Amino acid sequence: MLYIGIDVGGTGIKGGVITEKGEILAKHSIPTGAGRPYEEVISDIANLCFLVIGKAGVSIRDIQSIGVGVPGICDPATGIIPFCTNLGWHNVPFISEIHKHIDLPVHVDNDATVAGLAESVAGVSAGSKSSIFITLGTGIGGGIVINGRPYSGIHGVGSEIGHMVIHKGGELCTCGNRGCFERYSSATAIIREARKALPDHPESLIAERCHGNPEEIDARIVFDSAKDGDTTACSIVNDYVQSLAIGIVNLINIMDPEIIVLGGGVAAAGDFLLNSVREAVKPLIFYKDMPYASIELARLGSDAGIIGAALLGLHR
Amino acid sequence: MLYIGIDVGGTGIKGGVITEKGEILAKHSIPTGAGRPYEEVISDIANLCFLVIGKAGVSIRDIQSIGVGVPGICDPATGIIPFCTNLGWHNVPFISEIHKHIDLPVHVDNDATVAGLAESVAGVSAGSKSSIFITLGTGIGGGIVINGRPYSGIHGVGSEIGHMVIHKGGELCTCGNRGCFERYSSATAIIREARKALPDHPESLIAERCHGNPEEIDARIVFDSAKDGDTTACSIVNDYVQSLAIGIVNLINIMDPEIIVLGGGVAAAGDFLLNSVREAVKPLIFYKDMPYASIELARLGSDAGIIGAALLGLHR
Repeated sequence: MLYIGIDVGGTGIKGGVITEKGEILAKHSIPTGAGRPYEEVISDIANLCFLVIGKAGVSIRDIQSIGVGVPGICDPATGIIPFCTNLGWHNVPFISEIHKHIDLPVHVDNDATVAGLAESVAGVSAGSKSSIFITLGTGIGGGIVINGRPYSGIHGVGSEIGHMVIHKGGELCTCGNRGCFERYSSATAIIREARKALPDHPESLIAERCHGNPEEIDARIVFDSAKDGDTTACSIVNDYVQSLAIGIVNLINIMDPEIIVLGGGVAAAGDFLLNSVREAVKPLIFYKDMPYASIELARLGSDAGIIGAALLGLHR
Repeated sequence: MLYIGIDVGGTGIKGGVITEKGEILAKHSIPTGAGRPYEEVISDIANLCFLVIGKAGVSIRDIQSIGVGVPGICDPATGIIPFCTNLGWHNVPFISEIHKHIDLPVHVDNDATVAGLAESVAGVSAGSKSSIFITLGTGIGGGIVINGRPYSGIHGVGSEIGHMVIHKGGELCTCGNRGCFERYSSATAIIREARKALPDHPESLIAERCHGNPEEIDARIVFDSAKDGDTTACSIVNDYVQSLAIGIVNLINIMDPEIIVLGGGVAAAGDFLLNSVREAVKPLIFYKDMPYASIELARLGSDAGIIGAALLGLHR
């Protein structure tokens, strides 16, 4: 059987027809048009499903289910998405609305959760018994897979690892709390620290690469400058990695997964990031004589969203 | 069938014969005699098993297995306890050693994990699908139960929630890291803060209750003084509860259990603690429109150790 995977983002919506091994038979993208009434967006998602079925050269009868990854959560009991910030959605009856257009079972889960599922079936954590996927982007998302199944807790509100407090009384977070993991280990955190450092370090490679314009700074500029040995960038990356290591060790101390997978935009820094994180984690491990999670980079890139969403129909 | 449960503590070792419902048929305690060669302690544990079998009026043939809760962990692959601080144990081959004396299957797990299992079978979280037990004692231990089974992760090093960092760069912990949860939310933390406050607040009820001797301060004195409205004690308890709430909300954001159970010495503060914690957790919750874990006090008291250890044979 085949599965449709839909990856709903703030700017674009991707769709694909996926095999049970996570292979993509066809895919297509449309603009989200965030801000429109949810009925319009969901109608577009239904049409995207039909479009990719056609593009794959298969029939709707070959499709087992539709899986949807959203930057939020879906209440499994009601099919309602309580809120989804990027789309401005609040209490959207997603499943009943999409059923007005297309008659297939629909599974909805968090976008990081489905990306973690994708990696655990067809990516770097394939074959592992348990994994935690960490998306290092604008914020931090988490995708927990236990015994091959996505784990979102009993009420569906788990795996929000970005809002684990690692610094009581620290930086104010968008969630209203202080000191959340994503305030220190997201791309946003790197950019914030680089902007703070810029006025005092006009000699930094960061200043050169952003043409003296703080608005141009992104995580890549900071990492590239650190790779080139720039002192300011190295200091920012070092602080960043220390916080990331604290968050990772917290997850190891609580959940002890087999693999921790780093994905999202920041993970594009590659082995430079990976090696630094592995080194920073080592001295923080509690049971120093025991094995602990290997830390790896995600492999599926931006296709993880549609692959994992599709696989919800098989693995949930 | 019946099960033997052994609860190994730093000063005493308790044993009991337990039914599959968690009822105690017989129990007995012996001193640990920590510091002796591990062979002697384990020989005493084997004899304690025979003693409680006799006391229960049953035969060894009625016993399915022996479960042991230790203040440490046991490598499930080797049966070796890598370390167990209170007993001064390091790489003790527990299972092979006890098998020199008694021929029954042996399961070993962390003491907080088995207490959590006990509560989830015969205590406050009975019937729940997932729970996290938090022991608030000298340190903080965690017992995670998912789908009725104790969860210690893939390498057996999980559920060490006391060493989740909630305050980057904060108080130095016995584990070598800084800012661990147990530095802020254990009985030790309350006592430390009360001792710090004492010189500046000789008028406090804490000073009266400890007869001016900081060495006499325990968590109970601080909570009793707070219940009586003492300003110094209220301030200490308030800080304590805030940190405890942060740790609890971190666990909710990551694992989203059905119930969080508070046990250990500090939980003796009862409803005064429970109500404060529930109030402090509420504003920190991420998905404010969604249901989240109920927070409850443990019910089984000091018997949880032998009950949960015994039940390892049935639920692992």
